[in-house]
Amino acid sequence: MSAPAGGPAAAAAAPHLAILCGAGAFPLEVAADARRAGREPFLIGVVGSSDSAIEAYPHVWVRMGEVGKLFAALKGREVAELAIVGAMSRPEFSDLRLDWGAVKRAAELAQLFRRGDNGLLVGLAAIFEREGVRIVGAHEIAPRLVAPAGPLAARAPTPEDEADIAFGARLLEALSDFDAGQCAVVAAGRVLAIEAAEGTDAMLARVREMRQSGRLRLKGLAGVLVKAPKRGQDLRLDMPAVGPDTVAGAARAELRGIALAAGAVLIAGRERCIREADAAGLFIAGFSS
Amino acid sequence: MSAPAGGPAAAAAAPHLAILCGAGAFPLEVAADARRAGREPFLIGVVGSSDSAIEAYPHVWVRMGEVGKLFAALKGREVAELAIVGAMSRPEFSDLRLDWGAVKRAAELAQLFRRGDNGLLVGLAAIFEREGVRIVGAHEIAPRLVAPAGPLAARAPTPEDEADIAFGARLLEALSDFDAGQCAVVAAGRVLAIEAAEGTDAMLARVREMRQSGRLRLKGLAGVLVKAPKRGQDLRLDMPAVGPDTVAGAARAELRGIALAAGAVLIAGRERCIREADAAGLFIAGFSS
Repeated sequence: MSAPAGGPAAAAAAPHLAILCGAGAFPLEVAADARRAGREPFLIGVVGSSDSAIEAYPHVWVRMGEVGKLFAALKGREVAELAIVGAMSRPEFSDLRLDWGAVKRAAELAQLFRRGDNGLLVGLAAIFEREGVRIVGAHEIAPRLVAPAGPLAARAPTPEDEADIAFGARLLEALSDFDAGQCAVVAAGRVLAIEAAEGTDAMLARVREMRQSGRLRLKGLAGVLVKAPKRGQDLRLDMPAVGPDTVAGAARAELRGIALAAGAVLIAGRERCIREADAAGLFIAGFSS
Repeated sequence: MSAPAGGPAAAAAAPHLAILCGAGAFPLEVAADARRAGREPFLIGVVGSSDSAIEAYPHVWVRMGEVGKLFAALKGREVAELAIVGAMSRPEFSDLRLDWGAVKRAAELAQLFRRGDNGLLVGLAAIFEREGVRIVGAHEIAPRLVAPAGPLAARAPTPEDEADIAFGARLLEALSDFDAGQCAVVAAGRVLAIEAAEGTDAMLARVREMRQSGRLRLKGLAGVLVKAPKRGQDLRLDMPAVGPDTVAGAARAELRGIALAAGAVLIAGRERCIREADAAGLFIAGFSS
């Protein structure tokens, strides 16, 4: 696990922090956990995307493409670290409302928008870093939201579950060479499902359907969801995450539990995840790779 | 590719051949191709499973569990080679109608039925071989039904397609270590879907859904279905196969084509596959690993 950002005592020394907030409640969870760790984050809301609850913090609203306004706000607050948190729907370059700060960088931005999602993010991160703003991951500023090692809910994996977790972790490691697979479901040494482009929720729904249709004949709770980042994945820009939806999907698929690479997977809605896992008799556990 | 069973000239020398016919038309295709290759197969129909069209050949009907009747028929015809072809739904041991030949082997059979599907097949194959009947694969007796190297339909893969095929083949090879993945869809170096327990048709339907929902934004025909056996898979007992359903699924997913490990994947309904691939503008091509 990365070093946490420091306790309240370290707050004065920590560089000023901003959070660029994507959709949903998760950016607010990260902000709350950063505050708990002693830092007062400055929140950047994206008009039409971010939750209005960000206004409980020092904040600014920008439209997609208002790059000049964004950089001015970061400079005004002497922000030295920025986390990009939550789902952000990728705009078309032509939909951006370019302000003067963006127009100055228009050629570069247009180039970036020709890249894939990951290439776009890497390019945007480079622009921030050139302006003196270091990009940090949610896991670096909100340590409580990161999967710890060991069990998180009431149940713990059995030795058989541990064997499935280790098998799944090796499978995901092998898939890393192909830039695929953050997730798989393994039951008693058998691979039931592997995630590619469909996403974790769809993969869990598939396991459920296979059990309901009788294609998979398994008795009682069976199988473990294993989730880990790809080898070499830049956790600052793109970190695997689970949340209450993942737990609900795993419960509907009648899995035995959820195993997460410790220190490398975010848990949104941690308390609710634990509560719902306990209700369904699932374990949630971090594993060390 | 394995050596074909020999042309008509070799027929007299070839050992007597039987085909244990699972459901569907594929066993009949294999029988026809074996006959074309100069061998006259003896067909074994399973009551309630096999197509009644097997009666166009020398044949016998047996019920599940009539092991004695089956072995007597094989001995009476001096059958030395047996192919098990087509889908066979796995019965429960308690549903078998055991005749005297089965009762003599009941303890052993009951053991086998405690195994997984593959273990059961391997065990049954061993029983046949002990009786002097060698188990052969459909690919050994029906060479025309096996994917050849190179294009089979009008279109051929482009160099970009070839790169996706090689990438997908390496991916499947890596998955072999986990006894998973006979199939994947790759588009321009990106893995869109990986088959585990759901089967090829379900995986293709998923790619289609992801395109329709906009989760995957791809223009025109995109992506290649790559199919190959697992490393070490016993092709005599369990050989990957495609058919008109596969072509239809690939066409609905708007793929560019289907790539099959040459010599190691069966093609059911070959003429229809080619016709429908041509109609949809897909390639079907064998690749050498």
